[in-house]
Amino acid sequence: MPRFALKIEYHGAPFVGWQRQVDLPSVQGAIEAALAKLEPRDHTIAAAGRTDAGVHALAQVAHCDMTGDWQAFRLSEALNYHLKPQPVAITACVAVEEDFHARFTALERRYLFRILSRRAPATHQEGLVWQVKHDLDETAMQAAADILVGKHDFTTFRSTICQAESPVKTLDHLKVSRVETPGGTEFHFDVRARSFLHNQVRSFVGTLERVGAGSWTPQDVQAALEARDRAACGPVCPPQGLYLAHVSYPVDPFA
Amino acid sequence: MPRFALKIEYHGAPFVGWQRQVDLPSVQGAIEAALAKLEPRDHTIAAAGRTDAGVHALAQVAHCDMTGDWQAFRLSEALNYHLKPQPVAITACVAVEEDFHARFTALERRYLFRILSRRAPATHQEGLVWQVKHDLDETAMQAAADILVGKHDFTTFRSTICQAESPVKTLDHLKVSRVETPGGTEFHFDVRARSFLHNQVRSFVGTLERVGAGSWTPQDVQAALEARDRAACGPVCPPQGLYLAHVSYPVDPFA
Repeated sequence: MPRFALKIEYHGAPFVGWQRQVDLPSVQGAIEAALAKLEPRDHTIAAAGRTDAGVHALAQVAHCDMTGDWQAFRLSEALNYHLKPQPVAITACVAVEEDFHARFTALERRYLFRILSRRAPATHQEGLVWQVKHDLDETAMQAAADILVGKHDFTTFRSTICQAESPVKTLDHLKVSRVETPGGTEFHFDVRARSFLHNQVRSFVGTLERVGAGSWTPQDVQAALEARDRAACGPVCPPQGLYLAHVSYPVDPFA
Repeated sequence: MPRFALKIEYHGAPFVGWQRQVDLPSVQGAIEAALAKLEPRDHTIAAAGRTDAGVHALAQVAHCDMTGDWQAFRLSEALNYHLKPQPVAITACVAVEEDFHARFTALERRYLFRILSRRAPATHQEGLVWQVKHDLDETAMQAAADILVGKHDFTTFRSTICQAESPVKTLDHLKVSRVETPGGTEFHFDVRARSFLHNQVRSFVGTLERVGAGSWTPQDVQAALEARDRAACGPVCPPQGLYLAHVSYPVDPFA
């Protein structure tokens, strides 16, 4: 069966998350339903990142296996036709070898988190950022972020329902930047690792926001990490600022 | 009566435009209703740009006259409270002299138009851009845009229901740029003039898009301008890519 890699953009708001759930709207379910319009049978697709309810993707990657002799461009056009009006779009589609697996071949996941800092309610960016009303100190947030980079037991920053076998992960990159936009000051968190624990990025950002606001110090983050205790984590921030931004493979299928 | 200048951001989709209309949702009506919650009486506010249905603002400017002894920050907070959940936000508010008039004192209006060029439907940017499926040639669009800059009879680029006394206006600036975004390639049009005719920016962009797509030449735009005939205009583009981006005054009240 010819295999195709799909690059997928979606708005997380209407979905219970990536993963298919019976009778609930999921991104996986939406794409599998579109595939069933093209080849009427059960479809099961695998994705690089199982994003939570409300989390967005700029470039999720999944793969699907087709029976017919599809040309990749036509497949993406047909999927986008059947996905409408749901906010899910196939932005690239390529034929890949059968040993390509969107989840297991992936080398690194990259997430973007956007905080909008301003008092007036967001209008154009509503639902696309986590808004806080105060300013944040990005130098302090970066100092705390630097403590998290590397190989650690991240029990503190892991949801209690996380199903990963081990809480030990290597965080490759966590950069904080202040970005001036037409809608006000944003803080962007660029977070990269081979894989993540459940709620890890939102636990990081919620904790770093407390540092940016001045109520935690970078040393408090160090102590929280070392506690290896979920109760030591700062508040987990909401999902609407989080985007799965990029997935890396040994060979980029979309290049 | 103390006068206040308001800087206003809004999402145009739910509104018939800036201007108040009986029984229809307008941005002006929304703000006047919020003012009436603070000082119960009829309020009439004036704005720099009377944006059309569906057009957004990053920084519309209006002024209001209050009876009470309002501190500017408290006034903006109270207005934002009463504007919720409508997508209208007061992003700045300052006390100004009584000779400040948001409309008549304005020296220049600046509009931004965003075209998103990609095949897959927009998800995060849905309603915030005009999407076209083809690529555009920004060099050709800029060459045509340069023809429009300066003092001209813009009858070709003016709605037939435009109420301006004269079709002669001076276009100060029209720059086209290609912008790579996480959601794909955008083309931004930065358009500046002391004042605009009705539908002028959307007539410009709709015509320039035809040049970018290769179906018009810059010389066709020259001929259309010289025709001084509404029928010579290219298609008027839709409102959802248009933003009132900035209003200039002799002294910036928000500086």
